[in-house]
Amino acid sequence: MKEKITIVKVGGKIVEEEASLARLLDDFSRIEGAKLLVHGGGRSATKLADRLGIESKMVNGRRITDQQTLEIVTMVYGGLVNKNIVARLQAKGVNALGLTGADMNAIHSHKRPVKDIDYGFVGDVDQVNAGILAELIHKGIVPVLAPLTHDGEGHILNTNADTIAGETAKALAEHFDVTLIYSFEKKGVLKDADNDDSLIPHLNEQEFKDYVADGTIQGGMIPKLENAFEAIHAGVGKVIITLATAIDGTQGTIIEK
Amino acid sequence: MKEKITIVKVGGKIVEEEASLARLLDDFSRIEGAKLLVHGGGRSATKLADRLGIESKMVNGRRITDQQTLEIVTMVYGGLVNKNIVARLQAKGVNALGLTGADMNAIHSHKRPVKDIDYGFVGDVDQVNAGILAELIHKGIVPVLAPLTHDGEGHILNTNADTIAGETAKALAEHFDVTLIYSFEKKGVLKDADNDDSLIPHLNEQEFKDYVADGTIQGGMIPKLENAFEAIHAGVGKVIITLATAIDGTQGTIIEK
Repeated sequence: MKEKITIVKVGGKIVEEEASLARLLDDFSRIEGAKLLVHGGGRSATKLADRLGIESKMVNGRRITDQQTLEIVTMVYGGLVNKNIVARLQAKGVNALGLTGADMNAIHSHKRPVKDIDYGFVGDVDQVNAGILAELIHKGIVPVLAPLTHDGEGHILNTNADTIAGETAKALAEHFDVTLIYSFEKKGVLKDADNDDSLIPHLNEQEFKDYVADGTIQGGMIPKLENAFEAIHAGVGKVIITLATAIDGTQGTIIEK
Repeated sequence: MKEKITIVKVGGKIVEEEASLARLLDDFSRIEGAKLLVHGGGRSATKLADRLGIESKMVNGRRITDQQTLEIVTMVYGGLVNKNIVARLQAKGVNALGLTGADMNAIHSHKRPVKDIDYGFVGDVDQVNAGILAELIHKGIVPVLAPLTHDGEGHILNTNADTIAGETAKALAEHFDVTLIYSFEKKGVLKDADNDDSLIPHLNEQEFKDYVADGTIQGGMIPKLENAFEAIHAGVGKVIITLATAIDGTQGTIIEK
């Protein structure tokens, strides 16, 4: 039987507010067994860009990443957010190791081809180096992944954190029994975004398609759920979409084949 | 016989100018066998601080690190400089892993006690976790250390890169036959700072003391050489102070017991 691992993706809003970050790190440190954290940091990047007088351009919820913006996200995601999380987890006895995809060639990507929109220095994931991650995890190390990858030609690329979590979960499924938890500020997938009591506790792919068709599920939740279903199909044992205060996997929306 | 390792410390000025950085990374990638890179980044930190309207205060060549400055150095050293070096080394086939002292608890430090001067969030090194570094190095991984450590209580601390190089060399001497190369923009230790032909090719501790006493050696070279002699006494095989374009160890000032 494969060892269990819990992969937690936590959104920018959670890691960028002190109270919610403290709670998240407490909860994460209490998860037993192997684990891995993937974080965002978009709001901090926007804040730094503002202070530097650089405009943040978003299209479909994704950041257009020119050279200046790439420098900002490299600083904020790879430096400020990542290293503070690592230091704070270390203080809780979690042997955290902050990584971008460039480190040990952990996640190789390519610059997104320009179609309708030129996203700039944004990476689409080619491969997660599950072997080296698994080796470290088996030694008790807890990877903390920043949403940055590299193209193998010397360039850092800004990469969606949900995608990194999904791709890492899929790659690690060969080595572990993976539970993937997408945590954010809502209870899970909601029928009505404004009503926290409208949680959908179980969601299969046909239901997902129906909900998208009738407009119940929309916006950023669609790519998140596409990642989730892809992960389930690729051998990830369990995917849960839940509140950042419920990363023990007992609440939220459970994704089913 | 222990495996050889080359530890290269490279100063801020070198890694922050494109031409010298490209040359350095070329040369570093050509070093055979186990290796480790320690980098600075002070000029980039000062530049970002300037853009953010934050004053950079230096005392005895050391940066006074208040909370805002700590955020800047965490972004610049741990993110921008470190991750770009890692991505560029990966492109040259070097399996680089960017680390701060917080990552895997690689370097534990304590906040420098306030005596005459309050340096703020500056760390004095307590311990380098040589075991985990040696394990990774034996797997072919090349650590790239940013000048940041942690106190084990959740705080990143700004830490002198020369000290990190020296302490890491000393700790790794238990596992490897270590050559430590301090590289910078001069040929080595000079009798006359303005005359590149005044290189001191060999320097022992008595000569060092004499040169300090008569004012020949002064400023930032003194702590660098103190680190160097400490390293030699602690079992480091060879310490060389040299040009950033001569990190193959064939030139510069050789430090002797």
